[in-house]
Parts: sequence; C-alpha cells; structure tokens
Amino acid sequence: MQISKLARRSGVPVATVKFYLREGLLPPGELTGATRARYGEQHVERLGLIRALLGPGGLSVATARTVLEAVDAPATSMHQVLGTAHCTLPAVGPDVPHDLGQARELLRRHGWRVDDDSPALHALAAALEALRAAGAPPSDELLDRYAEAAGRLGEQDVADVPTGSLAEAVRFVVVNTVLLEPVLLTLRRLAHEDASRRRFPTGGDAAAAG
Amino acid sequence: MQISKLARRSGVPVATVKFYLREGLLPPGELTGATRARYGEQHVERLGLIRALLGPGGLSVATARTVLEAVDAPATSMHQVLGTAHCTLPAVGPDVPHDLGQARELLRRHGWRVDDDSPALHALAAALEALRAAGAPPSDELLDRYAEAAGRLGEQDVADVPTGSLAEAVRFVVVNTVLLEPVLLTLRRLAHEDASRRRFPTGGDAAAAG
Repeated sequence: MQISKLARRSGVPVATVKFYLREGLLPPGELTGATRARYGEQHVERLGLIRALLGPGGLSVATARTVLEAVDAPATSMHQVLGTAHCTLPAVGPDVPHDLGQARELLRRHGWRVDDDSPALHALAAALEALRAAGAPPSDELLDRYAEAAGRLGEQDVADVPTGSLAEAVRFVVVNTVLLEPVLLTLRRLAHEDASRRRFPTGGDAAAAG
Repeated sequence: MQISKLARRSGVPVATVKFYLREGLLPPGELTGATRARYGEQHVERLGLIRALLGPGGLSVATARTVLEAVDAPATSMHQVLGTAHCTLPAVGPDVPHDLGQARELLRRHGWRVDDDSPALHALAAALEALRAAGAPPSDELLDRYAEAAGRLGEQDVADVPTGSLAEAVRFVVVNTVLLEPVLLTLRRLAHEDASRRRFPTGGDAAAAG
C-alpha cells in the first residue's frame, strides 16, 4: 500500500508517518520509484507498537528507538535477549548508587536470583531508601507482601512468553513490561479507592476516623 | 535550630532549603529576628518527605506542592480527604477520553466501586487501549490476574492506614501511593528476571526456545 493508505489504516497522519521513518522508528518501505515506496501489514502493526510506546508507554523518541532496536535485534539466547530488552526499558525509578542491603535481603528471602548490575535492583534500593527518607520505612512484612504479588505476576508473565521465535518473544516482553505497568499501577489505585470507600464510608466517618 | 543546622541534619544544602522555603514546599520557621528563624523537628521530617517526592517520587516542584497541600489540608471526611490526596497525585498514564468499556467490565467482575471521574479509571482504559493498539490485546484472564494482585495489595494498604488523625492518614496515603509504586514495578521486573533465568537457562536455550 502507499503511504497515504498506510496513514489511513493506522490512524496516523502522513506527516507523522514520515517523521517516524526519518527517526528510524519505522523501517522504510519497498522502493517502487524515485519517491514512492510500498508498505505492508508489518508497517501497520509497527505503527501500532510505536504509538503505544510513545503514548501510553510514555517513552521518548530516543528511548522508543532503543526499545525497537531490542525488538529487532538478531537473537542469540532467550534469557540474554530478554535481559537486553528489559535493560533498555526506561527505569521505573532513579538509578543512582545506593545501599543494596535491604533490597538484596528481600530477594534472598524470596529465593530470587538476579544480576547485581540489574537496573531494577538499583531502582528498588533507591525506592526503599526514599521510603525511609520520607519517614515511612517499609517493614519486611510489607515488602514480602509486595514481593509475593510481583512474584506471582512475574512467574505467570514469563510462562506466557511465546517461544515460537525469539523476535516474537522479545516483542512480547517489551510490550508487556512497558504497557502492563500502567495497568498494574492504575488497578492498585482503583483498589485503594474501592477499599477506602468500604473502610471509611462517606457520612459518619470523621468520627470513626477520629 | 538554625537553618544551617537544619541543613546539616537533613543532608540538604542551605541554598536548597531556602529554595524549598521560597517555593512554599517547606513552611517558614519561627522568626527570632529580622533575618533569623528557628526550625524544629517537623522541618527535618518535612525535608525528608520533600526529597522523597522530588527524587524517587519523580514529582515536579509544582506537583509536589499540590501533594503537600493535600497532606496539609484541613480534614473533613476520611474517604473524601484520601480521595483528594489520591487525585492530586501524578497520573500513572495518559488521561484522555477513551472507551471505558473493558475497564468498567473488569472492575464489575471484581465488585469494585469507583468514581466514574476517577483519573485512575481513565488511565486504566487508556492503558488497555494501548495494549490493543500494540497488537497485544489483554485477555480477561490476564486482567483478572492483575486485578487480583492489585486488589490484595490495595485491601491491605488501606487496612494499614493509621486512623489516629486525618493528617497522618493523608500523609501515609500520599507517601505510600507514590513511593510504593516504584517498589512494585521494580519487584515485578526482578521477578521477570528471576523467572526468565529459570525458564530459559543460559546455555542450551536457543534450541529450547526454538
């Protein structure tokens, strides 16, 4: 199909499609003339992925490019490739050197083996430090509860990874890691709202809370 | 204590303390002269909270101010105040009008009652739409799994809210909502890493992955 049809099919303006081509997010079409190219279904699909990463995924164009490079990277070993894809994803917290003690101890209690250089391990340590700095040091009981929930989700997420091809697996991991994160956070906030409504019914709650 | 001691105690440079005072994040001390003021323990504690919100919380100065206003707001009813605090927090996803169908249906299945204007509901709908756009439409089974995990965490989080005073409760909700989010996300990523290592052992996995 021509670029105008690709734009229509994807619901993305032609100028934006051209921008993605220039930025290297969208691979070029097959040249059919000096200034014309033909695009296929894989371009429609790719545009959906780009829009998802830039929009709800909240990625910058530069980060989206890195993530898409991980999606496109030639595969060597599954764990390695998934790890690379994972590490290129935007950090969920600040990544500065911190005391890893409580974070390591938590992972040890749950029997998790992760790389010492894992960005997520450093981000976890930073988040725990922030809670302490905010005067809300997290108890082991609280952290165990969060680790159990995350562990159950993580286990099942990985069980769902398609093993047909490495490229497909990487795409799955990237999309699910980035795009299920807002799902998890918004669901937790909605669970708070629902639980708060039940625990503190509107009306006579100032006294009850008093 | 004087500002220099406050700075030392908090590990924050004097210039930064003055910046927080000017920006209204830190309440002024008690004036003891034309250019001198005395600060108390509550200022040390507040500086910890400010640093946590601006640092790992990832808030802008303007958003941190709104959140701190919610923390300081005079209390009326517990659910209302917690709701206000909750709604001022930075959204975890884009907040644009979307089809709320699948999100509403998910909450209905789990018996959650939330406000139709809840920013989290709109953000959830946007996140689900993004997954569909990325070619990874989430199954009901997947969403139920995430909702169950979020529901368990949310229920326990709300049960932990201290009811001694509304101010204390709001502070708890703000701090735990903002600062436990990176904990949850980083733990999920670490769980992925651990589960991936077990499912795809390094070495002979290219063949196994097939």
